[in-house]
Amino acid sequence: MKCSVYIATSADGYIATPEGGVDWLHTAGNPEADMSSNPDMGFKEYIAAVDCMIMGRKCMDVISSFNLTPEQWPYGDIKIYVLSNSVTVPPENLKGKVEMYSGDITKLITQLDSEGYKHAYVDGGATITAFINLKLINEMTITKAPIILGQGIPLFGEMTNSVKLINSTATAFPNGFIQIKYDVKHE
Amino acid sequence: MKCSVYIATSADGYIATPEGGVDWLHTAGNPEADMSSNPDMGFKEYIAAVDCMIMGRKCMDVISSFNLTPEQWPYGDIKIYVLSNSVTVPPENLKGKVEMYSGDITKLITQLDSEGYKHAYVDGGATITAFINLKLINEMTITKAPIILGQGIPLFGEMTNSVKLINSTATAFPNGFIQIKYDVKHE
Repeated sequence: MKCSVYIATSADGYIATPEGGVDWLHTAGNPEADMSSNPDMGFKEYIAAVDCMIMGRKCMDVISSFNLTPEQWPYGDIKIYVLSNSVTVPPENLKGKVEMYSGDITKLITQLDSEGYKHAYVDGGATITAFINLKLINEMTITKAPIILGQGIPLFGEMTNSVKLINSTATAFPNGFIQIKYDVKHE
Repeated sequence: MKCSVYIATSADGYIATPEGGVDWLHTAGNPEADMSSNPDMGFKEYIAAVDCMIMGRKCMDVISSFNLTPEQWPYGDIKIYVLSNSVTVPPENLKGKVEMYSGDITKLITQLDSEGYKHAYVDGGATITAFINLKLINEMTITKAPIILGQGIPLFGEMTNSVKLINSTATAFPNGFIQIKYDVKHE
């Protein structure tokens, strides 16, 4: 099964402030730029290409805090698993939308694979780092907001081995965001 | 006086391994790619646009460790200051090439300004972070090697204030390196 990442970071590689805040994402860059040719910087196209999602518990908490209406729900009807060894029940406003999973990531992938899923969206810093360490990530799309946060929660946690990236592409959008894509070459 | 940054990092934003090594920079990406249209990814053009350089002591030590021949010296004849409050004499192989400076960065900039210098190349993670905190950096060119190091010395140290970036551009080179340019908007 293919696993990929689609995530936004600051120019210095943080996915959130030290407290987990992502408000800066919505104020960074030029809000008056003409984004009519790609208003969501490829997100809908990406979502259309995946059929399931695996995120960490912190990532779920951030999404829960948005209190999204059904119209605002960005993930369509893809199956969503939330990894947690402590939380067994999702927050009230995510019930029926996500399923908690406790245990081995490799087993989860094997299970999703056997159920016919083809492409998982992997989200959340700790979850992405764990997947990379398990050599499970195939592609990464990183959209960098034009701001240096100076401190925060980094996208990539510490890894013991370096990871080779290939097929790099980069796009600067009119609003100042830069989107970088890589394929991961696990050795 | 204009101050700018031209630096390479890993995809996860490190300028060196935890031990200060930069060998990965020379092995990352596709060495067989056709880079004839831009073999040095703009470095010579950048050097031609600056007339002085300010780097940190660690950065000097890395350059000193290369034991460059006069033919390999990449900085032309631009004036180079090395910031250090402890080291007062440069290493033997950099004598006559760099001058040590101890003290206030703002004063150094005022001095260079009064001497007619127009554009300083600022190098080294700690030095760049100090300059950003002093709101002295105007432009940044960051060339990202297609490798996740997983750990190392980050380009950006901790900052107390976030910094807005404008006029983003991005180029993916055939060797897989991605070069990002920003202007810094100090508020």
